[in-house]
Amino acid sequence: MKQVDCVIEARWIVPVVPSGAREHHALVVDGGRIEAIAPIEAARARYSPSRRFELARHALIPGLVNLHTHAAMTLLRGLADDLALMRWLKEYIWPVEMREASPEFVYDGTLLACAEMLRGGVTLFNDMYFFPEAAARAAVTAGMRAALGMIVVDFPSPYATDPLAYLTQGLALRDALRDQPLLSFCFAPHAPYSVNDKALSQVATYANELDLPVHIHLHETQDEITQGEARDGRRPLARLQELGLVGPNLLAVHAVHLTRAEIELLAAQGCHIAHCPSSNLKLASGMAPVARMLAAGLNVGLGTDGAASNNRLDMFGEMRQAALLGKAVADDPTALPAAQVLAMATLGGAKALALDAAIGSLEPAKAADMVAVDFGRPELTPCYDPISHLVYAAGRQDVSHVWVGGELLLEDGVLTRPELRAAAARAAHWQARIRPSPSA
Amino acid sequence: MKQVDCVIEARWIVPVVPSGAREHHALVVDGGRIEAIAPIEAARARYSPSRRFELARHALIPGLVNLHTHAAMTLLRGLADDLALMRWLKEYIWPVEMREASPEFVYDGTLLACAEMLRGGVTLFNDMYFFPEAAARAAVTAGMRAALGMIVVDFPSPYATDPLAYLTQGLALRDALRDQPLLSFCFAPHAPYSVNDKALSQVATYANELDLPVHIHLHETQDEITQGEARDGRRPLARLQELGLVGPNLLAVHAVHLTRAEIELLAAQGCHIAHCPSSNLKLASGMAPVARMLAAGLNVGLGTDGAASNNRLDMFGEMRQAALLGKAVADDPTALPAAQVLAMATLGGAKALALDAAIGSLEPAKAADMVAVDFGRPELTPCYDPISHLVYAAGRQDVSHVWVGGELLLEDGVLTRPELRAAAARAAHWQARIRPSPSA
Repeated sequence: MKQVDCVIEARWIVPVVPSGAREHHALVVDGGRIEAIAPIEAARARYSPSRRFELARHALIPGLVNLHTHAAMTLLRGLADDLALMRWLKEYIWPVEMREASPEFVYDGTLLACAEMLRGGVTLFNDMYFFPEAAARAAVTAGMRAALGMIVVDFPSPYATDPLAYLTQGLALRDALRDQPLLSFCFAPHAPYSVNDKALSQVATYANELDLPVHIHLHETQDEITQGEARDGRRPLARLQELGLVGPNLLAVHAVHLTRAEIELLAAQGCHIAHCPSSNLKLASGMAPVARMLAAGLNVGLGTDGAASNNRLDMFGEMRQAALLGKAVADDPTALPAAQVLAMATLGGAKALALDAAIGSLEPAKAADMVAVDFGRPELTPCYDPISHLVYAAGRQDVSHVWVGGELLLEDGVLTRPELRAAAARAAHWQARIRPSPSA
Repeated sequence: MKQVDCVIEARWIVPVVPSGAREHHALVVDGGRIEAIAPIEAARARYSPSRRFELARHALIPGLVNLHTHAAMTLLRGLADDLALMRWLKEYIWPVEMREASPEFVYDGTLLACAEMLRGGVTLFNDMYFFPEAAARAAVTAGMRAALGMIVVDFPSPYATDPLAYLTQGLALRDALRDQPLLSFCFAPHAPYSVNDKALSQVATYANELDLPVHIHLHETQDEITQGEARDGRRPLARLQELGLVGPNLLAVHAVHLTRAEIELLAAQGCHIAHCPSSNLKLASGMAPVARMLAAGLNVGLGTDGAASNNRLDMFGEMRQAALLGKAVADDPTALPAAQVLAMATLGGAKALALDAAIGSLEPAKAADMVAVDFGRPELTPCYDPISHLVYAAGRQDVSHVWVGGELLLEDGVLTRPELRAAAARAAHWQARIRPSPSA
């Protein structure tokens, strides 16, 4: 009998790689990594765990990867809904951000985001926001995996004054936090319309040199493209290509408006897409041609975007939305089947962040980032197909257990770290500060 | 001090009529009806309740109206996903229905649906299925309000052999159950393509005579219209109009594909729409032009459709989906704002069923059909606007209390009636019968 840290026995294990669901299997964890997946009886005969979980009604899946968010913006959740994009940004979001954004704001907002995401089965988020060092501290406090955006934008903010200062601060942060095992880094130039050519070229140079992902909003709205064409004489993607940014490091967020040729280009160059269907609908940005992207061989992951434009950091919601909307946009109910959407939300995100050697599927030697989903509620009865259930019937409220690198962070729906249980209370004073309640 | 049955003190009451949210108000219930809504202190000074609820973090809203479902189909939840519509129907759904549909199937499936819907804040569902007497029994067992469809369809089923037999059985059921206070009835001819002219004319005659709603699938897919034109020489809506069905009793389900002239016709005739956005996306039926319907003055409610094509009976999900999709389809992020969508899901549904004098908003003298939504979870922090929160951030898991006609059916997330708590277990044997698990 081999001594191991933990064995999780589940009604179903859905490893993503290989595809399909395994019934009555056990996943063995040791040293924060997946040791084995085997039938329950075989695992019982072979391993002696310090702790055993018997999850008789549950599906065990890889941790979900939120491939695009602005975590700190949980503090602005629902501040301004049902507004046109530019009015929303200029009259509500940006003024508050310029006034309030600070390390404290980002730490408290990101910690709240971590609490929400972990409760909903997200184990890794790819973040873009000011003061990424504060987001990093929150992720470390949460015990959650994070890809931190080294943000670059032309306009000054409380965090930095000009593009070079943003870049320098981001790179210094990466150097300072290189030894944090749960953290990774992306360049995060905000968008083609908000970062100048010189800064984008610098990002391209650094990204090639350091081989890091470039996380950028791209072709989110038709207006962005029309205005880009008027200003630069070409579509934003063509501009990025000339500036050397189109390659396997490019993670294009939204990518709602793409021609067939652009889809082919992105696929041929090995780029990645962060599809954010809820945000794209809510802001009326449009509907991304995801089935066509997938058919072209493009890697697509899913993101929630920030809580100011969603208003949930709910990857179960995004899975369902991606599947449903993808079918309607493709005019084909067989498009984006459940297993493919689950793979997008896990391995697709890990690939886009170049972390797929370590996470994204339940395979031996990968990190033990896992989520148990309890199928015991009436809403999940009956169950003919667990993978279908995960995407179409289950919700984040059905997540019962979450592990990151083998550490149990959610147990029977309760966050194990006290800092996370206190995150919502910490956020309360920001609400009064950002917009006092009318009754206050 | 007036003795009353119950007072609910809430952080917010969102009565739908009038619009807006009232902070720190109390709703007074007596004899199953709403007696008053007043500031908490005023209500404390005036009323002595048998029971008082102090819901300090909650929003109290009217019960949600699920304007279109096939409740018994919860037993087929997730049986066959990611399939083309006709393959889904002909190879999976219809064969199972023809083999299994029975009063027992319908009772058990509908009871499970009631458990799911009540847990998610639905207090009234408009049903279309075989053996409506079994659905009625389940609704009565559940203590839930139901509009029962007197189904009519050309093809024989275990329930009836021909259209006249369907109609006769439906009308007999209505006569038998006239005294049930929570039940109402609609004619439910299945769809233009599945009911012949003579039967539709009979329905029109009866509906006019009895002044009852006519609940019918209409213009769900482009194929339905194309084939209808080929067969009948005109679009299905035009055929219904000639047969005398287009008027204030018409409740058109889906109505995905409507010309501007058809929208104007339906609005001018005082018809109603049951918009089922999730089902329309999942089956790739299309995207209904809801903002245009509303602009034309059409009354629109929301429905989940059956669990075989959704796979949730989740009206919070449909509210969010309707708002998000409605904006993208209208290319306008200000379309379908949260308050309008909440009104669709409550009063809009009640109007479509001609029940708006009794339910659909929290107004004195209306029935006490109410839902409390707990805003205490981290996912709902902070809260700048409770109505926005209800649609964009909250989910059915946040429903804590549900009352129907003043009876408390869900308390702190637990169903009060033991039959409902046992509904999922009752459903279990159907799963094995419908499709034995591969491991069984």
